Parts: sequence; structure tokens; C-alpha cells
Amino acid sequence: MGFRQFVEYESNTYTYLIFDENTLDALLIDPVVETVDRDLEAIRDLRLNLKYILETHIHADHHTGAGEIRKRTGCQVLASEKGGQKGLDRSLKHNEILELSSQVKIKCLETPGHTNSCMSYFWESGEKVFTGDTLLIRGCGRTDFQEGSNENLYHSVRSVLFELPDTTLVYPGHDYKGRLVTSISEEKEFNPRLGIQYDFSYFENIMKNLNLSHPKKLAEVLPLNQDIK
Amino acid sequence: MGFRQFVEYESNTYTYLIFDENTLDALLIDPVVETVDRDLEAIRDLRLNLKYILETHIHADHHTGAGEIRKRTGCQVLASEKGGQKGLDRSLKHNEILELSSQVKIKCLETPGHTNSCMSYFWESGEKVFTGDTLLIRGCGRTDFQEGSNENLYHSVRSVLFELPDTTLVYPGHDYKGRLVTSISEEKEFNPRLGIQYDFSYFENIMKNLNLSHPKKLAEVLPLNQDIK
Repeated sequence: MGFRQFVEYESNTYTYLIFDENTLDALLIDPVVETVDRDLEAIRDLRLNLKYILETHIHADHHTGAGEIRKRTGCQVLASEKGGQKGLDRSLKHNEILELSSQVKIKCLETPGHTNSCMSYFWESGEKVFTGDTLLIRGCGRTDFQEGSNENLYHSVRSVLFELPDTTLVYPGHDYKGRLVTSISEEKEFNPRLGIQYDFSYFENIMKNLNLSHPKKLAEVLPLNQDIK
Repeated sequence: MGFRQFVEYESNTYTYLIFDENTLDALLIDPVVETVDRDLEAIRDLRLNLKYILETHIHADHHTGAGEIRKRTGCQVLASEKGGQKGLDRSLKHNEILELSSQVKIKCLETPGHTNSCMSYFWESGEKVFTGDTLLIRGCGRTDFQEGSNENLYHSVRSVLFELPDTTLVYPGHDYKGRLVTSISEEKEFNPRLGIQYDFSYFENIMKNLNLSHPKKLAEVLPLNQDIK
């Protein structure tokens, strides 16, 4: 089974390429418009057939590369049905199994809280989960705009993601310290907001006092990401 | 077998953590002084016993974190015997096998050309090679200072690294496009300087016309990296 992770340096976004090394069918998670050429070069060099792009949510910090890659490859763009996103080829439901090939299957898990559109993708045989901005390495996505909800995020992490096997590797949407991966067991023990030793009121108190400024590109990219062309 | 890759964003340097999941013995390749706390946090959270730091070469673009981490953990700092580097606990020879544990063994391969001190580390059972600045993704290290040699670099890539199994994953010292890994077979086919379709004169002509400016931190960091304290 093939796997590659990429970094987009301006927004520190991680893009993921998953492929079946036998059939060469591939899917891409969260491409960024600035790095479309790089992603397509990797797909071409590895001789892959890109079938799907999966979006973990409607991003507010970068413009998705999904539309541009669809234009150039004919792949399908998929995301949660809960985001009201336009321009999707198909929307995904909670617990749906997306079959890239007979060997590579992805379980779609609704994990709202950062946004309503947040969906995590569990690749069980690859022992990996792609959590977007729901669960980050020793952190989590903000909940102060785009239908953010502390209740939903707490439930998504503690009752959905933390129910996955402890050894599952967690590949997030970003990390600002240059870490690339964590695991469910590490986050259960060491996440300073959502570790299992903390309750909801502890989490809520942290989230209410983050005082973050809005992403610089929000006004520009949100409409583009809400209607993928 | 455990493995983590990290990014240091200022110099786009990759640091690697290799560990035996049973014994918890660990080694670190190319730490950067700015990200020592992050690296030590990962080592602590994974409950690892850091035995070694391996340097792929004497770096000219960032200050190694090896000295600081040795002070704080008591680990040993190892590098090629060919660099004349001071402050090493032990120097490594070509084809030497470094045993982290009975399950994790690293073969040391002299790969000069970018510098005389360049050593690649082949982790055969992990199917990975750590090439420092000798072989980069679709590129290679510069050869215009620090005893750089086009002849040596060409030989190191074509007659040492390209002799490794095709499926070996290649983890380089840097990438400036946010790619994290490549493979021996990909670089044999697609490396625009060193692919097997090119001869030495083709390679040399490219290298003589790169016209790169010197790394910004060279004068500051080279003396620090030549004598690890």
C-alpha cells in the first residue's frame, strides 16, 4: 500500500496521497492550489490513476486545489454531506466505506466541531486516520467561527477518534512545529486539551480563552472552498 | 519498528527519529538546534532511550542540535571519520554496521561529493536510506564549497546509493517543495541530474552552471558544526 505526505509551507497544510501499489488507483486528501503542480508530478511519476480527492472540511486558511486537479485529471471531489459545499461530485455520510480498490478502503467519520463539514478518514488496513483540523498533534482546531462548537469537537475527539485502535497513526491537517504524525494513544495521554484525564469544562475553558486572530485569507478563500469549481 | 520525520522550517531541514518499539532504544539523525525541545518532547512522550545522534555531514545551513541534545540526554554523537569533525564520541567507517538494537541495524555508507564528511545511513529492515544532502528528491547537494566534488558526488549516487534495492525509500536532508520522501527507483528514473540515462559530463555541466549564492548562515554555523560542544 502506498502513502505519501506533503507540506505546503505558506499555510503549513499537509496533503496526503494514498494509493494501491497493485492497481495504482489513488486518492488525494486536502490538496492546496499553490502546490497542484507538485502533487500532479508525484501522481504522474508514480504512474497513478487519481480517482478521488477527499476534503477533510471547508478550509479557511488556504484555497483547496481540488477544483484545479479535477479539471486536469477528471477525478471526483468528495466531502461530507454536512458542509453544504457546492461543486462536489458526491457527498459522504457518516460510517460510509469508500472503496478505492479491493485492498484500500476508507471509512468516513463525521467529526464536527471545528466546522460542521469536518470529516475524518480512517484507513484501517493502513493503520492511519486523517483528522483534518479536528484532532491536531497535541492540539485541536479552533471552534470560534464556521459553525465551531466546543461540544461537538469534544464529542468528535473523545467519542469518535479516541475509539479507534490506540496504535492508529494520526495524520492531521497542519502542524506548526514541524511534527508530521502522532498516534491515538499519544493524544489520549498527552493532548493538553483533550487528553482523557480532562473533562469537558476543562476543555471548554481553554477554548474560550484562545483569543486567536482570524486566518489572513479567510474572506478570500472561504467562498472559493464553499463552491469548488 | 518506530520512525518519525520532522521538519525545521527555517532551513527546511529534516530530522529523523528511528526507534525499536520493543527495547525503546532510539537514534536521531540531523537534529537542528532550534528544534531541540520539540525533538526531546517526542523522545520523552514515546518513552525512548536516546542512544545515538547521527550526523549525515557537517552542515552549512543550520546549527546542529547534536551538542545540546548530548548535554541534556547523555547520548553519543556519531559521524563519518572523513569529516575531521571534533567533539564526536565515535567516528564511523564505510560499510560499518551500527547496531541500535538486535532488530535495528544501520549500515553506514560514505557518500562524499557535497562534502567529504557526507555519510548515508541505510536501514535495511526499515527499507529506508537517509541520504543527507547527497541525494535529494529530484536533485542533489551542491558541490561548490566544503570540499565539494562533482566526481565524488556522481560516484556516490550512481555507484553507492543506486546499488541499494529499488524499493528503498530515500529520506533526504531537505526539500524545498514540501516533498518528504522518494525512492531509489524514482530517482534512477526521474532525477534530472543523476538519473541513469545521464552520464557524468551531463551532470557536471549542470553543476557548473548552478550559480548559487552561499547559505546565509555559513560563516556562523560551520565552525559550530565542525566542533560539536
